[in-house]
Amino acid sequence: MQKLTLKKIAKELDVSISTVSKALRDSHEISKDTRDKIKAFAKLYNYKPNNIALSLKNRKTKTLGVIIPEIVHHFFTTVISGIEKVANERGYNVIIGLSNESFTKEVINMEMLANGSIDGFILSVSKETQLLKDYHHLTETIDQGMPIVMFDRAIKEIGCDKVIVDDVEGARKAVNKLVSLGCKNIGIITTKDYVSVGKLRTTGYLTALTESNLPLNENFILKLNDELNEEAHMDLLEQEIQLLLKNNPEIDGIFAVNEIYALSAMKEALKLGKSIPKDIKVIGFTDGVLSKYATPGLTSVSQHGKQIGEKAADLLIDRLENDHVEPPFQTVVIETELIERASTSEI
Amino acid sequence: MQKLTLKKIAKELDVSISTVSKALRDSHEISKDTRDKIKAFAKLYNYKPNNIALSLKNRKTKTLGVIIPEIVHHFFTTVISGIEKVANERGYNVIIGLSNESFTKEVINMEMLANGSIDGFILSVSKETQLLKDYHHLTETIDQGMPIVMFDRAIKEIGCDKVIVDDVEGARKAVNKLVSLGCKNIGIITTKDYVSVGKLRTTGYLTALTESNLPLNENFILKLNDELNEEAHMDLLEQEIQLLLKNNPEIDGIFAVNEIYALSAMKEALKLGKSIPKDIKVIGFTDGVLSKYATPGLTSVSQHGKQIGEKAADLLIDRLENDHVEPPFQTVVIETELIERASTSEI
Repeated sequence: MQKLTLKKIAKELDVSISTVSKALRDSHEISKDTRDKIKAFAKLYNYKPNNIALSLKNRKTKTLGVIIPEIVHHFFTTVISGIEKVANERGYNVIIGLSNESFTKEVINMEMLANGSIDGFILSVSKETQLLKDYHHLTETIDQGMPIVMFDRAIKEIGCDKVIVDDVEGARKAVNKLVSLGCKNIGIITTKDYVSVGKLRTTGYLTALTESNLPLNENFILKLNDELNEEAHMDLLEQEIQLLLKNNPEIDGIFAVNEIYALSAMKEALKLGKSIPKDIKVIGFTDGVLSKYATPGLTSVSQHGKQIGEKAADLLIDRLENDHVEPPFQTVVIETELIERASTSEI
Repeated sequence: MQKLTLKKIAKELDVSISTVSKALRDSHEISKDTRDKIKAFAKLYNYKPNNIALSLKNRKTKTLGVIIPEIVHHFFTTVISGIEKVANERGYNVIIGLSNESFTKEVINMEMLANGSIDGFILSVSKETQLLKDYHHLTETIDQGMPIVMFDRAIKEIGCDKVIVDDVEGARKAVNKLVSLGCKNIGIITTKDYVSVGKLRTTGYLTALTESNLPLNENFILKLNDELNEEAHMDLLEQEIQLLLKNNPEIDGIFAVNEIYALSAMKEALKLGKSIPKDIKVIGFTDGVLSKYATPGLTSVSQHGKQIGEKAADLLIDRLENDHVEPPFQTVVIETELIERASTSEI
């Protein structure tokens, strides 16, 4: 017989996983009727919620669970390489689950791993979780005594250890660099605001412009829809960036919140006959292999993914080994670094 | 109390995991003394080997376990994106473990996941496993009734479903392209022979030269030590490639068995004042983002990682859903494709 999970209850009753989870906790966000129905169903089929605290008392798996939003992504893979390094040194295994930026998959993966396979989580939440602002799966896990360390996309409302980069400061440094090189009309290519790191980097951009007394021009701000990141939509991404550059020929500097946006901006600028860095200077965020191998080399804000992973693993293992899941929690900020390459260098 | 694992027995008795595993199976590769000692220890501490077959009968986890050799690697991450796609469509979860190219970590990860967390494996073996030719952990898993699908680095000796690219043919196509463009002195940058895909691609290179009646020149063959792939040793990698090009100035074409080797070859050729593709044409293997964004764009043999992952997941899920773990097994060959870019185009 298959084990009954939140997912199966949700499917059977045609409600969301979040609704099932909340109903089983008797949350008043859910109508009494729905709660009763879900509880009756769970009881009928003998649903057993994870009893993480119990499993923790009985055995240690010596395994860390890592949940990341996507895997074809240099930043997340370098974070994992850092986690692996520290985990191996300290005698722990690592298993990885992907949310694919989906709230439901994040919940399912956490439920699956928390069920006796791992001792604690290191995770970066999905964009959908940030959009829905539904964090019940995180708070429940912590409440049951299983520690979580969040990295990069950390949620302010959740009490746990966090390892973050200072996105505002990193972006501010990047834009200040463009200002110091003489750029007067600096554009930004960023994400919609619900993506926390995109929003923070946009804040850094705005801060730097204000500090330099440069005017804010709404037309210079391109907030891209998230689906455009997928390989299938690269053409649309490039079209949007082309329009930004075409409609605003005075733009002489671009700050892009990730590597793909930055490289696409360089590509479109070159297509429009502009010379880099003479006519337009470009800085990206996340220093990956692409920045290094691009021509011209792309100046980038390095997030030090490996160090983030190392620190996250150390924080989690420290907590596990001290059997200490209560506050106070730490937030460790890993400083960004501006790696200068030809896309900004004066020739 | 912590669960006793092969790893812990091995550590306690200061022998390898492989020795413990073989001793517990009463393998005559291990001396009788050692076998007796290990069996006594296991008995004393009540060691329970995984009883996968039993767990399979009792419940389905609806989860696939994936073991890959490294994660900061575009090919493996695209394979995983393909596995995820099919798994999600067919109602399965995916959890991932890394071997970091280590035999021991591969064994530990398989033991950990096989222990009730997953229904079957999709895996690409570590380089160390290929070097040691120790496949007991694979045969044991299969013997106990848990299906395995191998991809990319498949082991001929293991009976299971496999999804591979035709490495010989892919390399042959690439070298034939260089020949058709007029290259007479074609070099190869490859791995040491124990890495199966490196060896196969070298075979394709040699085949193409022979078919074209081009002489084989040992000096044109650079077999790189594996540690040079790590970021810390990039300088050494570049030095070796520089020497190849400096000592053999007649080289007018390079086939490289991966993207990093190819990009480093382009970089070193440019440093030596050569023009690409006029003086030297370059083709890489694995079509990743680097090939696309490099300048000049790198002509590459695309391995279609996503399709490999999709096919592997379909094969595994088909087997799980038909409860069918016996032969016959399938080997599916995903054809490679030559993606032409500026590094070979005649101007």
